[in-house]
Amino acid sequence: MSHNTFGHLFRVTTWGESHGPALGCVVDGCPPGIALTEADIQGFLDKRRPGQGKFVTQRQEPDAVRILSGVFADERTAREFGGQVTTGTPISLMIENVDQRSKDYSEIAQAFRPGHADYPYFAKYGVRDYRGGGRSSARETAARVAAGAIARKVVPGVRIQAAVVQIGPHAVDPARIDWDETLNNPFWCPDADMVPVWEEHLEKVRKAGSSTGAVVAVEAVGVPAGWGAPLYGKLDAELAAALMSINAAKGVEIGAGFAAAALSGEENADEMRMGNEGPLFSSNKAGGVLGGISTGQPVTARVAFKPTSSILTPRQTLDEQGRGIELRTKGRHDPCVGIRAVPVVEAMTACVLADAFLRHRAQTGGGAFAPGASARA
Amino acid sequence: MSHNTFGHLFRVTTWGESHGPALGCVVDGCPPGIALTEADIQGFLDKRRPGQGKFVTQRQEPDAVRILSGVFADERTAREFGGQVTTGTPISLMIENVDQRSKDYSEIAQAFRPGHADYPYFAKYGVRDYRGGGRSSARETAARVAAGAIARKVVPGVRIQAAVVQIGPHAVDPARIDWDETLNNPFWCPDADMVPVWEEHLEKVRKAGSSTGAVVAVEAVGVPAGWGAPLYGKLDAELAAALMSINAAKGVEIGAGFAAAALSGEENADEMRMGNEGPLFSSNKAGGVLGGISTGQPVTARVAFKPTSSILTPRQTLDEQGRGIELRTKGRHDPCVGIRAVPVVEAMTACVLADAFLRHRAQTGGGAFAPGASARA
Amino acid sequence: MSHNTFGHLFRVTTWGESHGPALGCVVDGCPPGIALTEADIQGFLDKRRPGQGKFVTQRQEPDAVRILSGVFADERTAREFGGQVTTGTPISLMIENVDQRSKDYSEIAQAFRPGHADYPYFAKYGVRDYRGGGRSSARETAARVAAGAIARKVVPGVRIQAAVVQIGPHAVDPARIDWDETLNNPFWCPDADMVPVWEEHLEKVRKAGSSTGAVVAVEAVGVPAGWGAPLYGKLDAELAAALMSINAAKGVEIGAGFAAAALSGEENADEMRMGNEGPLFSSNKAGGVLGGISTGQPVTARVAFKPTSSILTPRQTLDEQGRGIELRTKGRHDPCVGIRAVPVVEAMTACVLADAFLRHRAQTGGGAFAPGASARA
Amino acid sequence: MSHNTFGHLFRVTTWGESHGPALGCVVDGCPPGIALTEADIQGFLDKRRPGQGKFVTQRQEPDAVRILSGVFADERTAREFGGQVTTGTPISLMIENVDQRSKDYSEIAQAFRPGHADYPYFAKYGVRDYRGGGRSSARETAARVAAGAIARKVVPGVRIQAAVVQIGPHAVDPARIDWDETLNNPFWCPDADMVPVWEEHLEKVRKAGSSTGAVVAVEAVGVPAGWGAPLYGKLDAELAAALMSINAAKGVEIGAGFAAAALSGEENADEMRMGNEGPLFSSNKAGGVLGGISTGQPVTARVAFKPTSSILTPRQTLDEQGRGIELRTKGRHDPCVGIRAVPVVEAMTACVLADAFLRHRAQTGGGAFAPGASARA
Repeated sequence: MSHNTFGHLFRVTTWGESHGPALGCVVDGCPPGIALTEADIQGFLDKRRPGQGKFVTQRQEPDAVRILSGVFADERTAREFGGQVTTGTPISLMIENVDQRSKDYSEIAQAFRPGHADYPYFAKYGVRDYRGGGRSSARETAARVAAGAIARKVVPGVRIQAAVVQIGPHAVDPARIDWDETLNNPFWCPDADMVPVWEEHLEKVRKAGSSTGAVVAVEAVGVPAGWGAPLYGKLDAELAAALMSINAAKGVEIGAGFAAAALSGEENADEMRMGNEGPLFSSNKAGGVLGGISTGQPVTARVAFKPTSSILTPRQTLDEQGRGIELRTKGRHDPCVGIRAVPVVEAMTACVLADAFLRHRAQTGGGAFAPGASARA
Repeated sequence: MSHNTFGHLFRVTTWGESHGPALGCVVDGCPPGIALTEADIQGFLDKRRPGQGKFVTQRQEPDAVRILSGVFADERTAREFGGQVTTGTPISLMIENVDQRSKDYSEIAQAFRPGHADYPYFAKYGVRDYRGGGRSSARETAARVAAGAIARKVVPGVRIQAAVVQIGPHAVDPARIDWDETLNNPFWCPDADMVPVWEEHLEKVRKAGSSTGAVVAVEAVGVPAGWGAPLYGKLDAELAAALMSINAAKGVEIGAGFAAAALSGEENADEMRMGNEGPLFSSNKAGGVLGGISTGQPVTARVAFKPTSSILTPRQTLDEQGRGIELRTKGRHDPCVGIRAVPVVEAMTACVLADAFLRHRAQTGGGAFAPGASARA
Repeated sequence: MSHNTFGHLFRVTTWGESHGPALGCVVDGCPPGIALTEADIQGFLDKRRPGQGKFVTQRQEPDAVRILSGVFADERTAREFGGQVTTGTPISLMIENVDQRSKDYSEIAQAFRPGHADYPYFAKYGVRDYRGGGRSSARETAARVAAGAIARKVVPGVRIQAAVVQIGPHAVDPARIDWDETLNNPFWCPDADMVPVWEEHLEKVRKAGSSTGAVVAVEAVGVPAGWGAPLYGKLDAELAAALMSINAAKGVEIGAGFAAAALSGEENADEMRMGNEGPLFSSNKAGGVLGGISTGQPVTARVAFKPTSSILTPRQTLDEQGRGIELRTKGRHDPCVGIRAVPVVEAMTACVLADAFLRHRAQTGGGAFAPGASARA
Repeated sequence: MSHNTFGHLFRVTTWGESHGPALGCVVDGCPPGIALTEADIQGFLDKRRPGQGKFVTQRQEPDAVRILSGVFADERTAREFGGQVTTGTPISLMIENVDQRSKDYSEIAQAFRPGHADYPYFAKYGVRDYRGGGRSSARETAARVAAGAIARKVVPGVRIQAAVVQIGPHAVDPARIDWDETLNNPFWCPDADMVPVWEEHLEKVRKAGSSTGAVVAVEAVGVPAGWGAPLYGKLDAELAAALMSINAAKGVEIGAGFAAAALSGEENADEMRMGNEGPLFSSNKAGGVLGGISTGQPVTARVAFKPTSSILTPRQTLDEQGRGIELRTKGRHDPCVGIRAVPVVEAMTACVLADAFLRHRAQTGGGAFAPGASARA
């Protein structure tokens, strides 16, 4: 409920600014007895790390994570759990900032970059760390990714994968999505044929000193029926908040989403029949959530990211004294922030699901009632 | 954080099922000294009430609200406040259910209507009040609308208005939106020319025993800069959760939303210049929110509603014993639930803004820093 | 976190004033499938009800509770659960106020009764329902008792019992406490020999138009090891808050409490040895809680209640205009509010334990590790 | 609401174990524009630091705090605020552990020290960091003290002071309390004549390898009327939870506390009269809180601390295999943990008051209604 805390039972409190000494988070409420090392987290951070290609910011950050609390290892944990495990106490994670180059930003110290958080931060707080966007920098998402790595371990049966499905006007045909393909290109693109199209588009955008928007799709397979809860703890409402809280996100949809507005009731209703391992559905317009509760189908969502406003073209704006000025943003920036959002979308989805699992277990003991069975599985 | 509680400081806890004796909510955290009578709330409930046209459910409910606590009136309040006022203690609101007709639903007691919350409620809880959808019925939204009426009084400078901007495939041209027009037709349509198109479409849908989706747009004018807060208390993240929690909602977007994905950075950046009463913006792609904090521009959002799955066409589904059955939903239902969602979208927006205002006042004392001024206004 | 909400997962939101139309609460987060009727709750309300003896207020209230939501009964629940059960949705409880007699309070409308909440309510809110104490009336505790009746059903293995152990200067010798005796006298006194002493003391107090303080002890037997959690979710911290929130409470102690300050480490350490069904302790100075987590011993606490300030002796005070006045409180009041607090102390203890159980189940799956066993029981 | 988070709007999330690399906290919700440097915090930590006398543990820890986020300094903050200020974003504080000596604890790795959190941690989590008490170590209170230093700056008009008023059986006469005296001796004793008595008692305890309990009193002067809120946000209930959450606390009382049980209504009612700057009270039995809201009088509380169970006398207990063993705790420990609790009690009181202030400002705008005035001051 706090400004900088995510989740109810699996709770993540993040802190840190782009050019401060470090950033990090505290993960509270994690179950005990889960094997966890820094390497488990580092893999996900490496996926998100900047400086990995010409279409992402050139800032060089190792993003090395340290676990400062909440885990323990001794002979017994080695024997019983195979190594270091969570203890149920808060897990503090820290990532040091290394390559800040604060001097890059001196010019904009007093200016409000259009489309950026500069002005509302000033209006609200009266003082702000403007270096690299301060708290509103996308660097903060490193803490989310680190927390997400732990969240995945809380729901080991769930497989979460995200992909970029649109860059600028170029959208992937949903029928052509191949999740395995996302690892084969620098855009997390699930359609090999789209890769050269995006490459050309992004090259043009980069050369123009401009930027472009994107849409990221995410799918969580293996979520059992019963997670989430009416009416404000709805799984889709929690997911919407978590995904919309990512920098530059402007829209979230679940399942058929906005397209559902144009459908008829017949088209939209996912019919059910009985399978060997539980109910089967003829389609997944619902995106795996009905009435705020998971159905056992894959949970699917899409997030729209705006183009960053850090562009080379001069734009009209104001400074803190209220004077009109013309501003072009130099610094080091991503032409398409949506690309780097992929691991963040996965992480936020993981955190929401871990939280939903714990809340479900609290109220019901866990498990689900299966049609035809009289007791909870 | 609770399942059925909305908001952090302006908190709304709703309760009640479609066919129970009553439904209602408790509004906690409301400031004291606000004039409030049942009539103030009833006006908004009357807008939402079913049974008002052939395109909404024919259930007849007076939806008469009672205030059971949290207000006080005596000679002094009459003199100083003009009548009954809030006291700062929890406001309990109750609306009795009158026209339940539970017998309508006997046939579906054991069945899972496809596209409905029936199955996940069963899977999660093992027992459910299936009459009229029970807790997942759209009737619950009456409590939200009642709470929203109070929320509006907490932020009297803010004007909130919603409209239906798409029904089925027929979308209103944004350039043709005339907010005043919404009161002139039964569809909350902001474009007079679209009314006959929707009328024909809905008539066809109704005769076919089908249903259709819709998109609702909402605009809050008068929100000052500075409300909302990074990073999970973001105004747009809170709004996304609140709107996605409405029955049948499948998507939420802020400002340019999904369209922003196709824009360039130049197109998307709302330029600023100084006006007589503060900063002016050349456009509002941001939807009045940057970095999770309001900018002073109108806060704009859009919500996609799916077509209800209560249709006359038989659909394949399961019953509680896991047997495949064929089901058609008779009962009384809306062919387009999006229409009745309009006052609910307004109410949820009001609740989010009232909460954001109180949180902003808590941390900063209220007000905002204006460019050129050295102190908080 | 809300002002009028208790608990985290088993959440109780109370509302209502002493002389409004009704009071009640919403219980959210209750597990589904628990048999629950109004009679289950009424029994506890009847224990608390005023008008039952000459040492408690003569206000006559039937305190009849109605369940307005969150339960369901049909043929299947009759067959599988034996009748009406909780559904996992919010349970709304309402108790109508019948015997208000607001005219009794006209004289004190503008006055601040010394030792009462009148002045701080005025200072904070500027307006207050002064009739019968309004929101600060002990009548609100009826809602707590009703919620507590449900909480007990969430932790059926736990037996909770409270008793008055001191009235004025007359304290029961701990060695003479016989819990069964509490039901045999109107003071919930666990020592038969103390009854006539208190009777005489209270008769004197009543005739003098005065009042007297009291101490209530509570014991919860059957709480397994493992409930509660470091460091702010400590079971004893939660219990302290819940008990201190009861009207007129001024002190809370766990186990040996303040007496522990005078003990040596040897005296205070409860030694352990192995019993047939788990660890046994040589004593219970800890009151069943170590490090904020239950040990499996009975959870024991004591609460101090001040004498009510509603007395016939004139006292110096102020009115809303800041004028010095002399005030004596007529009305109908308890000479010893501690007596009627007994069922409230039990109820708050039950709510805290139900909440702790759900939180424990969320994080760990429930159960506890037993010494010598390698897996969770 | 989280296990390791304190407060609602001024929120403190602590993390860290006694023998991990570091401990710390994240303070979220702090108002912006408050001057804050590490030196502001270090002063309070130095008061709490171990290794400062023969009656406290000999562990040597510099307890040097680092601020990792949430503050900013540039030319403008130097000019307008006099230096580095808070920005309204989360403040991350870290204190490295230096002098751990984990080998001291090898003997007790598998044993449950009687009266310690060892057994319930094992029962709950199945795994625990036993080194130095791990998470349950009093070292965690360093994070609380650090957060309290910030909290004091949120309520600069409030002066908070604590003192030890009882050690073992030797209690200070309330009439002899001289707050200034507390700084003149190593026991925070407010009565110079008691110092030699305690010195002798503690010397005896230390030589015997035993320990002794204590009572700490705290007073907050300058809290205006109106802070706190019915019914669970009561200032005294919040204070009770915060103080009871401190290691080894077993009792909390407000104002007259348990002594109120023996008083008559006449004795307990604090009479009011009008003073030049607002209401004056004839006494402060209420401890500055009525109906859960501050009255403008000093807020006073007392906390009982048990003697630590880390003693040299062998005690019967169990190991993780359930075998009976005899245990004496060597290590380095405080003979009277109550002494070192003084700055912790102050810090928790400061955090509760800062939070109450922000919550009050949220709901009401701040300030208070004064008798005789028609508007909020």
